[in-house]
Parts: sequence; C-alpha cells; structure tokens
Amino acid sequence: MITVKELQGIVGKDWVVSDRGQMQRYLADETADAMRPKPADNVILVKPASAAEVSRILKLANRQKTPVFVRGGGTGICGGAIPIVDGVLLSTERLDRVIEVDKSNLMVVVESGVTLGSMLKAVEAAGMFFPPHPGDEGAHVGGLVACNAGGTRAVKYGVMRNFVRGLEVVLPTGEIVNMGGKLLKNNQGFDLMHLLINSGGALGVITKVIFRLCPKFNSSGTLLISYDQRHKAIDTVPEILQSGIVPLAIEYVERDVIEISARRLGMAWPARKGLAYLLVILTGDSDDEVYAQGEKVSQICERNNATDILIAERREEQANILKIRSEVYSSLKSQLADVLDITVPPASIGDMMDRVDEVAARFKVRIPTYGHAADGNLHPHLLAELAEKGILRQVKREIYQAAIEMGGVITGEHGLGVIRLPDLDICPDGKIWDLMRGIKKVFDPNNILSPGVGVF
Amino acid sequence: MITVKELQGIVGKDWVVSDRGQMQRYLADETADAMRPKPADNVILVKPASAAEVSRILKLANRQKTPVFVRGGGTGICGGAIPIVDGVLLSTERLDRVIEVDKSNLMVVVESGVTLGSMLKAVEAAGMFFPPHPGDEGAHVGGLVACNAGGTRAVKYGVMRNFVRGLEVVLPTGEIVNMGGKLLKNNQGFDLMHLLINSGGALGVITKVIFRLCPKFNSSGTLLISYDQRHKAIDTVPEILQSGIVPLAIEYVERDVIEISARRLGMAWPARKGLAYLLVILTGDSDDEVYAQGEKVSQICERNNATDILIAERREEQANILKIRSEVYSSLKSQLADVLDITVPPASIGDMMDRVDEVAARFKVRIPTYGHAADGNLHPHLLAELAEKGILRQVKREIYQAAIEMGGVITGEHGLGVIRLPDLDICPDGKIWDLMRGIKKVFDPNNILSPGVGVF
Repeated sequence: MITVKELQGIVGKDWVVSDRGQMQRYLADETADAMRPKPADNVILVKPASAAEVSRILKLANRQKTPVFVRGGGTGICGGAIPIVDGVLLSTERLDRVIEVDKSNLMVVVESGVTLGSMLKAVEAAGMFFPPHPGDEGAHVGGLVACNAGGTRAVKYGVMRNFVRGLEVVLPTGEIVNMGGKLLKNNQGFDLMHLLINSGGALGVITKVIFRLCPKFNSSGTLLISYDQRHKAIDTVPEILQSGIVPLAIEYVERDVIEISARRLGMAWPARKGLAYLLVILTGDSDDEVYAQGEKVSQICERNNATDILIAERREEQANILKIRSEVYSSLKSQLADVLDITVPPASIGDMMDRVDEVAARFKVRIPTYGHAADGNLHPHLLAELAEKGILRQVKREIYQAAIEMGGVITGEHGLGVIRLPDLDICPDGKIWDLMRGIKKVFDPNNILSPGVGVF
Repeated sequence: MITVKELQGIVGKDWVVSDRGQMQRYLADETADAMRPKPADNVILVKPASAAEVSRILKLANRQKTPVFVRGGGTGICGGAIPIVDGVLLSTERLDRVIEVDKSNLMVVVESGVTLGSMLKAVEAAGMFFPPHPGDEGAHVGGLVACNAGGTRAVKYGVMRNFVRGLEVVLPTGEIVNMGGKLLKNNQGFDLMHLLINSGGALGVITKVIFRLCPKFNSSGTLLISYDQRHKAIDTVPEILQSGIVPLAIEYVERDVIEISARRLGMAWPARKGLAYLLVILTGDSDDEVYAQGEKVSQICERNNATDILIAERREEQANILKIRSEVYSSLKSQLADVLDITVPPASIGDMMDRVDEVAARFKVRIPTYGHAADGNLHPHLLAELAEKGILRQVKREIYQAAIEMGGVITGEHGLGVIRLPDLDICPDGKIWDLMRGIKKVFDPNNILSPGVGVF
C-alpha cells in the first residue's frame, strides 16, 4: 500500500491526513445510517490541488495496486464515496476554481471540486442560468457528473448529462485525457464522455467540467395544487405533459412528509388543505407567457379534482416552497432505513404508486413516498421500523420487482453506488453487467479506482 | 466464411442475395464518389426480419469469424455502411414496423429499419412531434442512432442522442440485450445505451429504438435574413443565442450554393438580394409568442447590418425554404471531392470561417461553406478540382488542424465512418483511442462487426 510519505511527496505535508480522528467527516456520506457502508480501517486521506497531482497519485496507486476512492461533496446517498476497503481516499475539495463563465459560448468551465452552490453563484452573477438542480448545493460538480444527478428540474431541461459538454479526466492508469469541449455537436468516435457520466467514479477521476448554460428566463411562477387523494394528484401529471406545456418541474409530495420538513426549518407549508400536492414550476420569456401556462395547468388540475390551487409569483414565496421540498430527505433521514429511487415510464407512475401502497398494506407498514412525478421517478421511504421487523430487504425487493415489471429501473437518479449492487440480480439482461465489467477492466486493469462502486 | 445456404437457413431463401448485379445499390452510400470506399469483392447480402434472426446470423458469424457490415438507409456520407472486406452485408430494411406511438408516455417505439420519413408520418398522425431532422428522410432510425445524427434542429432540441430513451441491440456475440426503456431517468450502471449512440455500427446491431416525443408546437415562423458578407451573417449568431430566444434552427447558407439546389429542384430561392443568409426557424405555443421572438431576432439582425429580412409564416412557404436547404448536399454531390463536418465552440464560428477562407486563398481554390451556425458546425465543401490539383488531403488537414486548435473536432454530426479514420492522428489525446479499441474488444472479441468502421 502507498505510504503517507509518498503521498506527501506529491501534494505536500499539509494535504495528507492519516489520523483517523481528523478524517471522520470524510468517512460518511448522506446515506441513511441503516444502509451506509462501514469505512475500512486503514485509510489515508489525500487532497490534491491539480489534475497533475491526481495523475501522480493514480500512477503510484496503479503501480502498487492500492485502491483509491474518490470523494466530492459527500452528498451522495448510496454510499459511493465511502472507502470500503483499505486504501487512499482522494478528496477533490481543492480543485475548487470556477475557471470561466463563457457568456459568448453559453458555457461554464469549472474544476470538479467546485460546489454546485458556488457555481450557481458565479453563473448567476454573469446573468446566465444553469438549469439542473439536484438538491444539495454542497455537492461537488465532479460528483454531479459522476452520478448523473437528476433532481426537480429534469422535466424541462433533462438531467445533468444533457448539460455536460466536456470533461478532463484522470484515468486509473494516470493519463490525463480530455473528452468533448465547448461543443454542441461531437461525433468523434465512441462517446467516452457519456460513458464517464454516471460511471460513479469507477472509470476515472473527473478533474474539470464544461457545462452548457442557458440564457436566464425572464419570468417564473410556482403552482401549489392540493388534492385529497394521492391518485388524483398523480393522475393529473401525464395530462399536463400532453398539453404542450413543459414545466420546469412537477413534484409530488404528501402532507405528512412535507410538514416534517417545514417544521424542521421553522417554516409553514403554505397549503392549508389537502393531503397530496403537486408543485408545478413554470418558466417563460415573459410574465404573460407564464400566466397563460398557469391558466392552462390550473384548468387541467381542476378537471382532475384538485381541491385548491395556490399561485406563488414572488421570488421569495417560490423559494420558500422549494426550500421546504428540498429539505424533505434531510428531515426524514434520522427515521429512515433506506430511500428508494425507482423509475418507471412516466404514465405508469399511478400504477407504481398502487403497487407501493399494496406492498405497504400487505406488510402493515407506512411507506411515505414523494418524487419527481413527471419523470416517473419516485422515492418510497422505507422507515426504520422495517429494519426492526426484519422485512426491509423483502419490502425493498418487492418494490424493485414491481418497477422492473413495468419496464422501469431500480435507480433513476441516485445511482447504484455501493448499496444497490446486491439487488441487481432483479434486473434483466445479465449480459449488460458483463459488458460493464469488461469496460471497467479496459479503463482500470488493476481495479484500483473505487473498487466495488458503480459496477459489481 | 458463412455460406449462402447457412444464411438461407436463418432468414429463408428470398432474403439472401449473392448475385453481385442484384446488390449494386447496397454497395454504395451517399458519400461523394471521390472519397467513397470500394466495396469488397465477396459479399453476401442478408435481410433478417427480426432481432432473433439477427442474433442467429451474428452467432454464426462470430463462430466463423466472418465480418458482418450493417446497413440502414444508406444515407451516411462517411462510407460507414460499405462492406470494405469480404463478408456479410446485413440490411435492416425488413425491421420496418412502427410498433407503437405511445401518447401517454410521449414516446414512439420503432424497429430500426423504419425510415425517418415513415416514423415522422406516424408521429404526426398521432398529433405529436419528433424534433430532430437530419435531412434525408430515407435514413433508417437505427442508422440515425448509430451515427447520432444531428441536423438543423439541434439548436433548440439537441441531437439524436437527446431523444433516444431505449434500445434493443444484438451484440456481435449474438445476445439480444435491452438498454434503457420508456424512461426519463436511468442511472442503473454505466450507460451502455449512450455508448451505442454514435458507435457507428461497431458495437452492436440496433434492432429497436424508443424515442422521446414532444407535444406539437402550435406556431412557427421562418426568417430568411440576407447579408452582403459572410461574416456579418455569422457574427449575428452568438448574439441571437445570448438574447434568451432559442430558435428551432439557425442555418447559414450562401447564394452560390443555395441557388444550385433551388435550380435542381426547379424552385426559386425567395431572397433576391444578398450573398450570405441566415435561416432562423422559430417555434412557440402561440402566434403571438413566435411573432414576439421574430421581432427580437429581426432587431438583432438589423443591428448586425442585415440587408433584408423575409418572414415566412405559411407552412408551405417555410417548407419550400427548408426543402431547398436540405437538398444542398445532393445538388453539389457530383462536383464534390469531400464535404467536411468540422465543429468548433459556437462563438468561434466566425474565426473558423476566416481560417477556411485563408486556406482557400492560399491554395487559390473556392471552398463553398454552409452549416449549422448556432451549433458551431460547418460543412466546407472541397470540390473535385482539389483532387485534380493533388491538394485535397493537404487542404483538408489544414482545415482539420484549425478546428482542433480552436478546441473543435473533425466531425460534429457525420461521424468517423471509414473515411475519417486516416486523419485521426491530428486529434489529441491518443489514449482515448486506446480506450475505444479496448471497448470494441469487450463487445466484439473477434472483431466481426463492421471491422474498420467507427474506430481505428
């Protein structure tokens, strides 16, 4: 195994940590306690400041066959950043420069350790807009790319993948390579950039990212629509999508869950009535345009038996609603055994909800569920009581099975990380996994980079 | 090598052709004569009707190490569909079913041999919209995916990649696998679907495709803007993009080129004045919205010294302009030695045009150029005279070199096919090509599928 001294020789004395006490916060991520993998006993934390330093570390590790785990902001919830075997933990936190907001190309160039929050600030200061917003602004952009983060705004703009235009990557064998660039079209060979997106840190260490930006929208509005039943809310969603309006986001939440988050934040959920809510965010070139969209959406919701429709137009009012929504996971985290991330064809989301209800009824448990309704992406929350009753795995696998039967997947945006790998036998087309393992071997012949993460 | 009899045993007697005379039209594609690779002497043409038949053919070929080339509509212009060594030519023409237009999920499911034209008809009949339009409607959808086709409408909607949601693929080793589905989010492992997109037929035979659709737009308008100089036109483009308006397309054409196409079609190019033109297509939810966008674009063009702005609102009028634009390549084809596909950061397109002009001046030749201006994607046309003068390769490489220096690529939408492979030494990051060759080997250990295509 690589020694502290060797690493110090590359990054300098101040940037290697071997004292366990001083690296505690690096040994966990946002995965719920019950599912979070245990970190290995012998871990050295290293903080390189450049792609060149990352390259030297990986060359050394590859030569000595020492595992290297990559850590961004530690906001993942599938255990992908945790060093599960002895080795080196490489934090990207010092790769924190916003290199350029390029207005004329509508792109931003950032080092991979820049947080989503810092990047958004820089982009906004330049009068531009970066659409995806997966939630926690402490996430590093390298992690957002490695995990192909999704989030609420995928309805109009798609997931992270759609915004990545170029990557600088250090391969497990140490070479620094560039994929893509400030380009809108690129057919120069197999698209390795798209392979790195959602590679979970298993194929290379991302050190730089070029994202596409959008011009700022001039107007936005948020509709908070109340229903007295889950299904009435969920069944409205496909109708909105077919109407020709493309909202920025369509979120589904339930009263019991959203109130926990509001209480924790010391805020009030603005809807007084209802048990289930749709949150529809509209954006456009002018207030008139957004207003016209809002009218059309309201009519659809009324036809679908909404009990109340609240329209938030002021920026602050909208931000508050979103704040409460985005903190749901954090506020539930302590009670959780696991949060699932099943994704089905968008029109099947009502059926999928039925199946979750059915499983809950059969096992006599409560399964709070919310999610990105327009994307067919649901997050059933498996509470600690399931683990106590010894039925956690069984409930989980039944929900997975239902998603697969509907043509879905067990993860739409959270990724496989470490904690999803044991249940992949449920997924069809075994040959697919052989190909992935083959690709892993091409990139990482000695299996040193995040071994056991992202592919099994 | 596989025998005719063996193939007949799989697909039936009627669907195997060994007579050279009867397969002539299968031995060429739309590549300009001067560049088109010669087909091999011993080719057997086979036309399977199902993924199961494709699987049996590939299993057999893999066992006997017989090369198999895949052919869709034959509309490619880089020689990727031509059997360059002895073997089997597999045409997807009988995989021609539009399986389903799924309105509730906004998706269409098609076999890979369906033409773009047939699919568009089916989608339109269902009241939906498939945005990408790479030009020739005779292209098979499998080819569009395998080549990640681009085209004029990428400005607003992106390239083919953005619309592919699922694939059924037969691997070179014969397994039939599914990637993706009717899904908007999918992070279940490395994204092999995105690897197959733009694999050029080298990693698997695509047999089925699920595309995402959009709701139909209610209104559209086309601006035809005339300039008396190349650069005034080109320099307008970044300004339009930064204005917040996202046109469906922004095309750049020049009078001498567009008039050849118009003449050939027996039509008149509607702009009387000017030498260089921008063609801006706007779409929106209402006529008012499109009108407002048109006003804004017109103002920007006037500020940039446009000499004339023509607004086409009637569907037929718009279709005529686009028809003339889309036939430019076909009308020039007989005079061509090669058509390039360089792509640079969008704001560098004016500089790239300068470099093309400079090369043309230095070699004392004319290089007609047009392209997808907003995508940074230009098609300099190298005429037959360059080949006659013996300067074709040199001119080509100088233009490539200029594109690479600007952070560009030698192909944005046409792909590498066969004819671009010899010049890849110009592209940096040699390690990238090693990885691609490694991936090819994982999928196709015996190198039977389209050997020499898509990767070198």
